[in-house]
Amino acid sequence: MTISNYKEIAAQKLAKRDSSFKKEWLIPQDQLPSSSQVKDVLKFPIESGFLTPLEIEITESNALEILANIKSKRWTSFQVASAFGHRATIAHQLVNCLSEVFFDEGLQMAQELDEYYAKTGELKGPLHGLPISLKDNLNIKGHQTTIGFVGFINNPIQFEQDAVLVEMLRSMGAVFYVKTNVPVAMMMPESINHIYGNTVNPFNRDLTCGGSSGGEAALIALKGSPLGVGSDIGGSLRIPSSFQNLFNLKASSGRFPTYGARSGLPGLESVLSVNGPMSTSLDTLELYSKCVVDGEPWLKDGKVVEIPWRQVELPSKLTFAVCFSDGVVKPTPPVTRALKHTIAKLLEQGHEIIEWEPKDHERLANIITEFFLSDGGEYCKKVAKLTGEPFFPYMEMYNTSKELGVSKLWELHAERTSLQKQYLDRWNDTAKKTRSGKPIDGIILPVTPYPTAENGKFKYVGYTSVFNALDYSAGVVPITRADKDLDLKDEDYKPVNDLDKETFNDYDAEKNHGGAVALQIVGRRFQEEKVLKMMKVIAGAVDTEHYWK
Amino acid sequence: MTISNYKEIAAQKLAKRDSSFKKEWLIPQDQLPSSSQVKDVLKFPIESGFLTPLEIEITESNALEILANIKSKRWTSFQVASAFGHRATIAHQLVNCLSEVFFDEGLQMAQELDEYYAKTGELKGPLHGLPISLKDNLNIKGHQTTIGFVGFINNPIQFEQDAVLVEMLRSMGAVFYVKTNVPVAMMMPESINHIYGNTVNPFNRDLTCGGSSGGEAALIALKGSPLGVGSDIGGSLRIPSSFQNLFNLKASSGRFPTYGARSGLPGLESVLSVNGPMSTSLDTLELYSKCVVDGEPWLKDGKVVEIPWRQVELPSKLTFAVCFSDGVVKPTPPVTRALKHTIAKLLEQGHEIIEWEPKDHERLANIITEFFLSDGGEYCKKVAKLTGEPFFPYMEMYNTSKELGVSKLWELHAERTSLQKQYLDRWNDTAKKTRSGKPIDGIILPVTPYPTAENGKFKYVGYTSVFNALDYSAGVVPITRADKDLDLKDEDYKPVNDLDKETFNDYDAEKNHGGAVALQIVGRRFQEEKVLKMMKVIAGAVDTEHYWK
Repeated sequence: MTISNYKEIAAQKLAKRDSSFKKEWLIPQDQLPSSSQVKDVLKFPIESGFLTPLEIEITESNALEILANIKSKRWTSFQVASAFGHRATIAHQLVNCLSEVFFDEGLQMAQELDEYYAKTGELKGPLHGLPISLKDNLNIKGHQTTIGFVGFINNPIQFEQDAVLVEMLRSMGAVFYVKTNVPVAMMMPESINHIYGNTVNPFNRDLTCGGSSGGEAALIALKGSPLGVGSDIGGSLRIPSSFQNLFNLKASSGRFPTYGARSGLPGLESVLSVNGPMSTSLDTLELYSKCVVDGEPWLKDGKVVEIPWRQVELPSKLTFAVCFSDGVVKPTPPVTRALKHTIAKLLEQGHEIIEWEPKDHERLANIITEFFLSDGGEYCKKVAKLTGEPFFPYMEMYNTSKELGVSKLWELHAERTSLQKQYLDRWNDTAKKTRSGKPIDGIILPVTPYPTAENGKFKYVGYTSVFNALDYSAGVVPITRADKDLDLKDEDYKPVNDLDKETFNDYDAEKNHGGAVALQIVGRRFQEEKVLKMMKVIAGAVDTEHYWK
Repeated sequence: MTISNYKEIAAQKLAKRDSSFKKEWLIPQDQLPSSSQVKDVLKFPIESGFLTPLEIEITESNALEILANIKSKRWTSFQVASAFGHRATIAHQLVNCLSEVFFDEGLQMAQELDEYYAKTGELKGPLHGLPISLKDNLNIKGHQTTIGFVGFINNPIQFEQDAVLVEMLRSMGAVFYVKTNVPVAMMMPESINHIYGNTVNPFNRDLTCGGSSGGEAALIALKGSPLGVGSDIGGSLRIPSSFQNLFNLKASSGRFPTYGARSGLPGLESVLSVNGPMSTSLDTLELYSKCVVDGEPWLKDGKVVEIPWRQVELPSKLTFAVCFSDGVVKPTPPVTRALKHTIAKLLEQGHEIIEWEPKDHERLANIITEFFLSDGGEYCKKVAKLTGEPFFPYMEMYNTSKELGVSKLWELHAERTSLQKQYLDRWNDTAKKTRSGKPIDGIILPVTPYPTAENGKFKYVGYTSVFNALDYSAGVVPITRADKDLDLKDEDYKPVNDLDKETFNDYDAEKNHGGAVALQIVGRRFQEEKVLKMMKVIAGAVDTEHYWK
């Protein structure tokens, strides 16, 4: 590929995507809600009258219900794929969430599954007929992976092999039909690029869906998918999950297979990107996680650790540490309200709450940023140069940073190892403070300071990236929505630094109204099973386990 | 510390070590075997008449026997510590294997354990009273860690904290009494430095003990320790274990805790140093490994993976792949004989053997060398400069290499990840060739091309380092000794490259006579339990399970 007009290449790809939709599923432009007038479009798909009652019933079901109904032959896989294809189309028309669209292929996969089931009486696997949407970075054979880079359009024309995870899900009977939009290189907390533009938030279309798994989150919130796979290297699963009030599990690296996913920073190992499930259903997350691990991914991806899926029973009373602010950027009022509400509910249920001192969070978050930039942005610059596409402001640091040098990188590694050890020691030391005499079960804290954000106003990923630096497991639980009447700015607050001040100044109760607010529950490294159970406890306490029903 | 005469600083440290011995345990110089005339000193400690019958009985016992005899009160911990201290002194006089010597502290620990047992009737832990020797890199509170650098003498004066592993072993009742010699920075396959000089091989004192856990291996072979802990980043456990015909387990990184060990390349994470047990007893390895993992090291070291110690039952008939040569350096005749003998014995027992193609071994071994040198030797140069000590020839590459740059490092990481995946796929694909229809259980291959080597003639670590690059688990099993009458040079062999030619030319049946020959059995990542069981099968087949009895 030679340097050319990046806009032209992008426009061709965009046109190709747009031509991939099935005409019968597209809503005529003039019947779509006005983007300037209708901000919250969550209910549009079912209220607009374009979906059949069966399509609504299917798309309002979680993965377990879908699988059960296919097994019982109440629904065919084809009906399910068709319903989600239709609803994904509408979702896309509302928020611009899709990157690769291949409904016919999905319907074909579904039909083959139906035929297989009819013929053999056996399901193909534990995910037989379940549509799964995939973040753009997961390679699927026969499709492209652009991860928001114009330079990756037709480069290659198509991948010849599924990513390991995709291959596993395919063999379990999953149906693929779309990939979803991401920011350039997946290194921005919004989902914008020069190919597809911006994905907006269905809770409030003036706000960003977040990133980098933002197209995925927006699609799932509109129920164009019952289960999506995103990825996270600094918060890329958790931020959009929070901004769309989804359930999400971010595992420690090595729990789920990542081989064959395209990276924006390939070869970076100082911190490893992980992938994980996002859904409106917590049970769906558990089903997915168990299926993937039961599939023995360590036999298929050299980076996966051989830890089987474990049955975890929690005691009836748990001990959580809570962190209201990391001392760098104070969360905005809706987030603080969500946290207070959650803690109150957990206390009501008899759980113990102690305080968590966010020691070293700032340093760990800074170290991880240095890791991201340690090649001096060389790779991103190289790909951008393929077509001459410019850098977005948030990505400008990749354009201007300098190669760190391996010697300095080693120093950062050693420092991180030491901070990791100290963090673990502090975790263990909580045993001295708890009633049970045992260390805390998890830490509850914000996912981000924002109840979603306006485009360009997401400036701080420290609440999530610290746990990538530590490689801890974490879950996201929907709590509430920002409310302009409840979440008033505390005008007396004195910001402690520039970033804190910007966040304080940017918050506008009116503009953020309706934004999603979720919280993060963090477990130690490789505590995925326990994190899921703790998510259930929290969602139960605040009554959001069935938030989406 | 300022630049000074490195020889003077080293001489002071050497004198301090030499003054740490207990006079009553030292053999008068004139009663030691002549180093020019007596090469094999393995039997000297028990034949020389300096050890009491009880000391001999104790030091000829394995860890299980020692623990049982302490528990039954047949022996006290003090008697055991004293016996090993005495024998370690003699061992040292024969081969120069110790770096830090603190017998009185060990005796004190033992006495406290005896008092505890007498008073409470309880053992302190599963290793109550067991002397464990430690490679120099493991920090012990109150002691120095020089790892062969003159610049690390009195820098710091003493460590304030135990390494995590040391702390764990201490809490289980282990007794520490010595640390053992290593090469500078632990990055040479011999054990030589400017402080203590060279550790020689008790099988043949004209030959090297190997490295970097060489002092450890030499001490254990002379039974100055029933169990030692070494470390391995490219073969540093396996090479000296092979050169001393010891049993050894090299785990995948993350199985045993490493926090608080001093590194010669601190912050290097492209490949991680692992530590592991070395012993004349295979049962001792299993006991140690289980104890450490049962101690839940993932709660103490952020890099340890939460995989409990698993009970593994092997089928009665196994399938091994065998690799006679990696295509880079052909093993010398004693190693090939050992391999042929082992395969014949395994076939006799009904195990299946297929061939292993060493695809990508050379590239993986080259990549790992690039990782070692990726900081351009900055760290080693910095430490050497502290005192002006020169580089040994083998280390000269650290003096002359150039900083690789993070961008290039990322490219190497990505390449390694891909090779790792391909290796795993080929492992799985063996299922198509085996009688059982299952993939191979393990790969049997040389540890090194050499049956020990003369100093300066160890030039190729590719047989071991490939498995650090892959992070596979591996064990070393003693097989035989080089025999000048059996292991004649194949004068018709045509070397395939310069290194191969040097190895071919360097081999001298006469000079290598008596050298130890062990083999490597390799399992997939995190297959430590299975590797130990496979070691038992191999040692059983060639009748070396009780080689040291």
